[in-house]
Amino acid sequence: MRPTGRLHLGNYMGALYNWVRLQDEYDCYFFIADWHALTTDYARPGDVHGKSLSVAIDFLAAGLDPAKTVLFKQSDVPQHAALYTLFQMFTPVPWLERVPTYKDQQEQLREKDLATIGFLGYPLLQAADILLYKPKFVPVGQDQVAHVELTREVARRFNQLYRSAVTPEVAAAKPDKELMKAEISENVLEEVTFPEPDALLTPSPKLPGLDGRKMSKSYGNTIALTDAPDDIRKKLKTMVTDPARVRRTDPGNPDVCPVGDLHKLFSSQETMAKVYDGCRTAGIGCIECKGWAADGLNEHLEPIRSRAAELEAQPGRVEELLRDGARRAAAVAEPAMHEAMVAVGLRRA
Amino acid sequence: MRPTGRLHLGNYMGALYNWVRLQDEYDCYFFIADWHALTTDYARPGDVHGKSLSVAIDFLAAGLDPAKTVLFKQSDVPQHAALYTLFQMFTPVPWLERVPTYKDQQEQLREKDLATIGFLGYPLLQAADILLYKPKFVPVGQDQVAHVELTREVARRFNQLYRSAVTPEVAAAKPDKELMKAEISENVLEEVTFPEPDALLTPSPKLPGLDGRKMSKSYGNTIALTDAPDDIRKKLKTMVTDPARVRRTDPGNPDVCPVGDLHKLFSSQETMAKVYDGCRTAGIGCIECKGWAADGLNEHLEPIRSRAAELEAQPGRVEELLRDGARRAAAVAEPAMHEAMVAVGLRRA
Repeated sequence: MRPTGRLHLGNYMGALYNWVRLQDEYDCYFFIADWHALTTDYARPGDVHGKSLSVAIDFLAAGLDPAKTVLFKQSDVPQHAALYTLFQMFTPVPWLERVPTYKDQQEQLREKDLATIGFLGYPLLQAADILLYKPKFVPVGQDQVAHVELTREVARRFNQLYRSAVTPEVAAAKPDKELMKAEISENVLEEVTFPEPDALLTPSPKLPGLDGRKMSKSYGNTIALTDAPDDIRKKLKTMVTDPARVRRTDPGNPDVCPVGDLHKLFSSQETMAKVYDGCRTAGIGCIECKGWAADGLNEHLEPIRSRAAELEAQPGRVEELLRDGARRAAAVAEPAMHEAMVAVGLRRA
Repeated sequence: MRPTGRLHLGNYMGALYNWVRLQDEYDCYFFIADWHALTTDYARPGDVHGKSLSVAIDFLAAGLDPAKTVLFKQSDVPQHAALYTLFQMFTPVPWLERVPTYKDQQEQLREKDLATIGFLGYPLLQAADILLYKPKFVPVGQDQVAHVELTREVARRFNQLYRSAVTPEVAAAKPDKELMKAEISENVLEEVTFPEPDALLTPSPKLPGLDGRKMSKSYGNTIALTDAPDDIRKKLKTMVTDPARVRRTDPGNPDVCPVGDLHKLFSSQETMAKVYDGCRTAGIGCIECKGWAADGLNEHLEPIRSRAAELEAQPGRVEELLRDGARRAAAVAEPAMHEAMVAVGLRRA
């Protein structure tokens, strides 16, 4: 995730909430993509380090557990830039020009200068970010599937250009997971350096912002993961509702109401029943309904908020956790980078 | 210098010979550009590491002295790829498309695939290679002046985007060389991160290959710095001479003869006098003249050859010298990279 500063509910439900669950099933690597913050905003990036710390605090508060998972800041692990540089050597310029987001974002973000090598190259930097850890899966939303596809193409091209032959004896001596995708041709096995990871599509429930549009910092319609209870209550009071319910006496439909979407995610079955019944019969008003939504949301966010407050009081500890994460990430990334450099011929085994 | 394997006389006279003299006047950083070997040949780079060792041996044999100068292999210092990645963020694609070598080499080297990001980006990688060491000068030939100019533009853009304000007190506390190009505006000094280095044009005397064209590996007309004395003697026998001297009895002109060019660089005044007199009067034959040229060349190369043989017998020592050089280079590059990341906002000071 990019270091956008405090996370909002959209970031949380779209990614973090799933990641917290993934860490029990997989060996996970999560990082704060601080290099990527510069690919779309080099001119006024602001305090990227401070924003990275905020994201780390929200990650940890939401339940990412450094005992189970590796959490780090991208630029703390120098192999990301190194593998990116290596991948550039054999990546045709048109491969990057053809990535859908390249032209799309240049059209949509006209106020930004996206004519840089960094913006052209960022999906390739992502490929390096991913392949350094030789993953089986990349947990992404639908909008990132094209980038995972590019990552697979980059891995394939690397493997085709620089595959190394190993004898069956060498192969037999290796643990299964070290010998990836060996192909047998006569008596020689061919060993590939990088896997072709699959996108792991994570659920991204509908989470509208205060104005009913997608929750996004650029719309100014967000609820932060760490907003104070009263702020959440106040913000919800301004939230748009079912437009058909104009007067208090008009019945409404929670299924077309943004506040209804919040209830579905954060309220109890019992509250939900009261909402459906009360809204459809005009038995309750929107103010009351929003109060219950704030209750549910605050209950869900309370433990996150209190862990975040605890961590904010110890910025040194968060920095140390990130440094430790970077050490653990580098312990995987360094051998992978070494192997890639050996395959290319830049180093000896 | 790129890791081309054994160096030839053209590499020696065009660069190395000057560098050996520069190390007594300046704090120098010389590196073997192994990343750059991939920018024009990713598909079959061969044993880049082995070729890097050969170049290092020839560097040391020709007189680069690790006690006076820092000699290392580019990919051993991870800050090169990191600063390159950082520079990409604010470098417009057209800046690189407009570098003269980009289109030129794509036309001239049609048999190679130069449509890669790596080939597009290599002058920017050079800018990072240079600026990491905050140099005053870059010793180059005329063909590299455009790249030094790009380096200056990159430094200027970085400094403009990310200059930091320091108070006069902070400035006063800094040694002069740390406070570069401070600009005073009212009570605030603005500090820039990178200098704008100048090209230091080094003399590149005329050194023809065996066929009279420029000496170059791709023409197959080279004399290696470490060719055995007899091989040099044999090679010179095939060297072209003044085309006007067709028969032994025709007088010749050493000033239009490739062998004459060798005499000017490697023969004594005394031999030169014999050559001018004998050739112009047809008093000597070309075979005799070439024998003298071989004598002068062998005398000059003998100490280089014997040092190279000594080093080749101890590959471990050369590797260790390069590792030590990388450590010393990183001791300068790491603080420079840190300072750049602080200026951009990716790290705290």
